[in-house]
Amino acid sequence: MRIVVLAGGIGGARFLRGLKAAAPDADITVIGNTGDDIHLFGLKVCPDLDTVMYTLGGGINEEQGWGRTDETFQVKDELKAYGVGPDWFGLGDRDFATHIVRTQMLGAGYPLSAVTEALCERWQPGVRLLPMTDDRVETHVAVDLDGERRAVHFQEYWVRLRASVDALAVVPVGAEQSKPAPGVLEALAEADVVLFPPSNPVVSIGTILAVPGIREAIAEAGVPVVGLSPIVGGAPVRGMADKMLSAIGVETAAAAVAEHYGSGLLDGWLVDSADTGAVAEVEAAGIRCRAVPLMMTDLDATAAMAREALALAEEVRA
Amino acid sequence: MRIVVLAGGIGGARFLRGLKAAAPDADITVIGNTGDDIHLFGLKVCPDLDTVMYTLGGGINEEQGWGRTDETFQVKDELKAYGVGPDWFGLGDRDFATHIVRTQMLGAGYPLSAVTEALCERWQPGVRLLPMTDDRVETHVAVDLDGERRAVHFQEYWVRLRASVDALAVVPVGAEQSKPAPGVLEALAEADVVLFPPSNPVVSIGTILAVPGIREAIAEAGVPVVGLSPIVGGAPVRGMADKMLSAIGVETAAAAVAEHYGSGLLDGWLVDSADTGAVAEVEAAGIRCRAVPLMMTDLDATAAMAREALALAEEVRA
Repeated sequence: MRIVVLAGGIGGARFLRGLKAAAPDADITVIGNTGDDIHLFGLKVCPDLDTVMYTLGGGINEEQGWGRTDETFQVKDELKAYGVGPDWFGLGDRDFATHIVRTQMLGAGYPLSAVTEALCERWQPGVRLLPMTDDRVETHVAVDLDGERRAVHFQEYWVRLRASVDALAVVPVGAEQSKPAPGVLEALAEADVVLFPPSNPVVSIGTILAVPGIREAIAEAGVPVVGLSPIVGGAPVRGMADKMLSAIGVETAAAAVAEHYGSGLLDGWLVDSADTGAVAEVEAAGIRCRAVPLMMTDLDATAAMAREALALAEEVRA
Repeated sequence: MRIVVLAGGIGGARFLRGLKAAAPDADITVIGNTGDDIHLFGLKVCPDLDTVMYTLGGGINEEQGWGRTDETFQVKDELKAYGVGPDWFGLGDRDFATHIVRTQMLGAGYPLSAVTEALCERWQPGVRLLPMTDDRVETHVAVDLDGERRAVHFQEYWVRLRASVDALAVVPVGAEQSKPAPGVLEALAEADVVLFPPSNPVVSIGTILAVPGIREAIAEAGVPVVGLSPIVGGAPVRGMADKMLSAIGVETAAAAVAEHYGSGLLDGWLVDSADTGAVAEVEAAGIRCRAVPLMMTDLDATAAMAREALALAEEVRA
């Protein structure tokens, strides 16, 4: 079975670990969000791609969900001593090596997709990891800071400001001019199932869908498209998706997210058992819906979620 | 008193520490060799400039003479895990930060001289450190490897091959087209004394002198030019200067190095007490010469050497 997964960072990566356990023989292609990418200290940092790569490759810092395990911060301390910022983005020494290799390869002319493939040769994530695009797309968030409207990089909003102010708009700058990375459309055309993990529907999956051609390729694939709600009981399971949903005028509710994707894109939707009441609303919108436990507390629970998603896909297909 | 010092790496840096102790009120400008610079992992590494900066700024690894103190090697280990080379150049995590800052600034359009000044704002070396040039000059060494003549980067010869094969020629590639960095000619024009520390006469001081205009500016300054022999008892005090001297057809002897510089450039020359026999030969070549202890065993011994050099300069002037 060929499964294509659209993934952001932590939520997507953890779901993928469950999916691999649930479907060990499946051929999994991951289309990763690159709208969170940022240049720091002259280096290209791809937080979502790396979180998937490190998580599936066994190098992730499990507690924090991103970055490397057994990390040290000598480079960061030195940069601070040089007075070189920003200091709010905590890159560890091991992590720096990844960005150094990536930046060197990009500088030598390799596209991000080729660089990602090269990095994955080491990590052997057990999935094919593709960036959504080789072009530069950068998610900016419009905010009101001290009475002035400003657009900040998504990472500045998320990490530095910790989403402490309202997001007035979310713009994937460059998305309109971007093209899907090599392999993305082909993977979608050959997919048996497309899954949306419980990633952020705006700045993760929404950004991937903003790359012209990807949304259409999913719709035209003619295979079940099933998603898992990142909203449980009216709040994000982790992160600050509510702030992002408000920015695009979508209620922070399991049913509202499904309706935002819409029945033209989504065939099936899993909500948490706590949101059983949302099932009827989602089905009324033309999307098949089931309520099952959606907390990724451990690998078993996550694998069970993946099995439910695949079962719902088969139900949709039949 | 305004002193200009032409410096390579370890020998130059240690001498400068002695000079600062010997002449605490002097205004010291260092013209640093950049022919050893190398691009590693997409980063610009300036070994000689950094050795001077770290040594005078209190950040040097004292035992090894180069690199940072309290160093760790997480980045290096990770690069190796990615299979990215070369692995024979041992950059530590702290050191990497310097190269990251430098590379970012160069990428932003600052010349190396401005970058060096910015790095020195942190280290406060107590001297004005100028690269010999802002242009790219790279010292290559011609060697015979398995019967084939090849040109390798100086660092490859020095660090990877450990000068284990004969150097057939030494070429500062790009030197002919290079210009002295801003401030270099001005410093020489205003100098009261010019010193050549016991640095490598071929690949350190020789490379600096290969930048068009520098040799002429020293000669035209009309002030005492005094050097200290890096050769003691027919062998280099440290490093492999003998290999480099052979490549340019100069005997590994204190007197031969002075004669190589020549009386047109050099006014005074200090040889070690072990080479008292060389004094007459050097003086016969028109260069005033004294035999004094030249081993930089500690700060006191090094300061004494600097005082001898300054005394010889005054003798020449008078």
